Amino acid sequence: MANLLVDERDAKFVLYEQLNIEELCESEEFSEFSREMFDMVMEAAQKLAEKEIAPTNVEGDTIGVKLENGKVSVAPSFHSAYQRYCEGGWASLPISQDHGGQGFPSLLYVAAMELFVSANQALMMYPGLTIGAARLIELYGTEDQQRMYMDKMYTGEWCGTMCLTEPQAGSDVGALRTKAVKRPDGTYSIAGGKIFISAGDHDLTENIIHMVLARIEGAPAGTKGISIFIVPKFRYDESGNLVDNDVTTMAVEKKMGIHGSATCALNFGEKDNCIGFLLGGENQGMKIMFNMMNEARLSVGVQGLAQASTAYMHALKYAKERYQGPEISTMKDPKAPKVPIIQHPDIRRMLMWMKSVTEGIRSLLYYAAYCEDRVHIAKTSEDAAKYQTLS
Amino acid sequence: MANLLVDERDAKFVLYEQLNIEELCESEEFSEFSREMFDMVMEAAQKLAEKEIAPTNVEGDTIGVKLENGKVSVAPSFHSAYQRYCEGGWASLPISQDHGGQGFPSLLYVAAMELFVSANQALMMYPGLTIGAARLIELYGTEDQQRMYMDKMYTGEWCGTMCLTEPQAGSDVGALRTKAVKRPDGTYSIAGGKIFISAGDHDLTENIIHMVLARIEGAPAGTKGISIFIVPKFRYDESGNLVDNDVTTMAVEKKMGIHGSATCALNFGEKDNCIGFLLGGENQGMKIMFNMMNEARLSVGVQGLAQASTAYMHALKYAKERYQGPEISTMKDPKAPKVPIIQHPDIRRMLMWMKSVTEGIRSLLYYAAYCEDRVHIAKTSEDAAKYQTLS
Repeated sequence: MANLLVDERDAKFVLYEQLNIEELCESEEFSEFSREMFDMVMEAAQKLAEKEIAPTNVEGDTIGVKLENGKVSVAPSFHSAYQRYCEGGWASLPISQDHGGQGFPSLLYVAAMELFVSANQALMMYPGLTIGAARLIELYGTEDQQRMYMDKMYTGEWCGTMCLTEPQAGSDVGALRTKAVKRPDGTYSIAGGKIFISAGDHDLTENIIHMVLARIEGAPAGTKGISIFIVPKFRYDESGNLVDNDVTTMAVEKKMGIHGSATCALNFGEKDNCIGFLLGGENQGMKIMFNMMNEARLSVGVQGLAQASTAYMHALKYAKERYQGPEISTMKDPKAPKVPIIQHPDIRRMLMWMKSVTEGIRSLLYYAAYCEDRVHIAKTSEDAAKYQTLS
Repeated sequence: MANLLVDERDAKFVLYEQLNIEELCESEEFSEFSREMFDMVMEAAQKLAEKEIAPTNVEGDTIGVKLENGKVSVAPSFHSAYQRYCEGGWASLPISQDHGGQGFPSLLYVAAMELFVSANQALMMYPGLTIGAARLIELYGTEDQQRMYMDKMYTGEWCGTMCLTEPQAGSDVGALRTKAVKRPDGTYSIAGGKIFISAGDHDLTENIIHMVLARIEGAPAGTKGISIFIVPKFRYDESGNLVDNDVTTMAVEKKMGIHGSATCALNFGEKDNCIGFLLGGENQGMKIMFNMMNEARLSVGVQGLAQASTAYMHALKYAKERYQGPEISTMKDPKAPKVPIIQHPDIRRMLMWMKSVTEGIRSLLYYAAYCEDRVHIAKTSEDAAKYQTLS
């Protein structure tokens, strides 16, 4: 099968010619990498996307997800594709080796993600949110929290979510009503409902780690009084066993075009037995969550790019195969041979428009990732500042 | 239930104030009508749209249409709504009283159609194509053809379709391969396949009259050699009984957003027993069909208007009911009361954009219908010419 996901030549142009990813290898952080390794990664990503992930797309769309007896199950084929994804180390491609990741540049990660998301956006929302949630724990978590949650999220063994929206608190996050009440042991009792939680429940992994915005009893109104909690679907009890943490899936919600992705309405603390672990300080929730929200914004950009990319690749293939009408110079001759529609000027114009827009978006999003890498390897704050305003 | 379909005030503004539909009543053709009657018709249309048609929309979307044992069935609720539509005389609202219609201005018909299509576009495609097909028989058919087919189509007892597209002949209609072979009795044997036939098969009516483009054996290549045939699903035999006319439904095709509408792939003459009746002269098919295609183009415009209209009405209602965030002057006060989102400037801007575009389209489409009426009542060709270029 020809690659109908991403124009390989253009992706390589942006990586190697426009942004010169090899130059990043001159830094200490990326010194062990080389063009050869980047090529190998991209080749492996394309193979995984085409052979393992793309074939699951139709099943996710037609079967969708099922909520039965309070448990959500995803399309059967998603399991093995997710397994391959984790086994290949893709879940932690850009994560520091200190945390068990592979330490590759974000630029390479975004290029690989474009392939995976083009292949099946619904499937990729599960690991996509996981890495964002784990990063919050990397940035703000205690060593215990990192050991207990983050490590398993970076391998993909557990998934993660971000829980912001409530029925009365959408754009107006500050209006949220989910409550946290401090317990004698320093943990918190969580109670409240969240909606539109991507990957809110599923059977891809045995546990799901929710990053939940809630207001601690007595905290100020509005966004200033919001804290963020790690709320696992299953928490460790005193003996280190995983026990149910009272997170209930109320419904699977619909989102157009991503039937394979479980968007859930969740209820925390229905039986008054949901425990959350404060991440960072009290009332720091918005500041902390914004790290994940900004990452999610870029991911949504990649989703747009990926859809545009695979739409263009399919349109291009179809325009070469579909015969309709004669070539324009013989259009009035009913006996003139029919030509593939790519020979018609207006079809070419439309394809060129798709190609230009897609390549422009690709260049912009890869550049945003490149800026992250530049900030990461900057030796001085002045160096970093050059790219910070751009990323 | 408040009217969530069409802004009544604006529809009336265009009918009575902008276009002054009452002025049409000064002509002989519309002399029996009055503002009072137009008001009654619009009131009845709104009632039918809201009470009978709109409630079937969700069922059509969720159940869709079923193809079982070669027969297509529509959503159960469509049957009674269609019945009410026919009983009310809506199928022939703008049709001349000479042909059993009600003879109302097209302008009034388009305003009523906007209500019905807003209520359920998928359902309205069945009668919508019927009136267009019947008009071709009114314009080009013999008296026998009018008596046998047109009369029953104008009452809605039978439905109609337009059959142009074939897999290799989309925009390039001239490339069609459906064949017609003249039989000794002057009728034609029809053989070929058509795709994307709206209302191609269904169980709303006992018979369906297809208007089929085909090439008579030996006719020129391209569009010049195309003729148009009346091909009923069931034809009359010599004793005047309806017998199967060998039209097979191969598949129901998908069209986004109109699951309730049966878009079909049809095969004519699978058993070599499909008979068609030439409409107009040989090789006049394109000229004749263009009457229906032009009407269909305006109908598609009404579909766009109707979707825009009901989308705006729903958005407006939601914006008045949905509380989110405080009023802009107190936006930094977390304790300020939440307001309905219609109070937020950017929401108002979006609603105003929807309202402006919708009302502009409405004015344009009603005006096109008004021009038809003006041409219809014109006393001289100069009078007609004033409006012909605009309609």
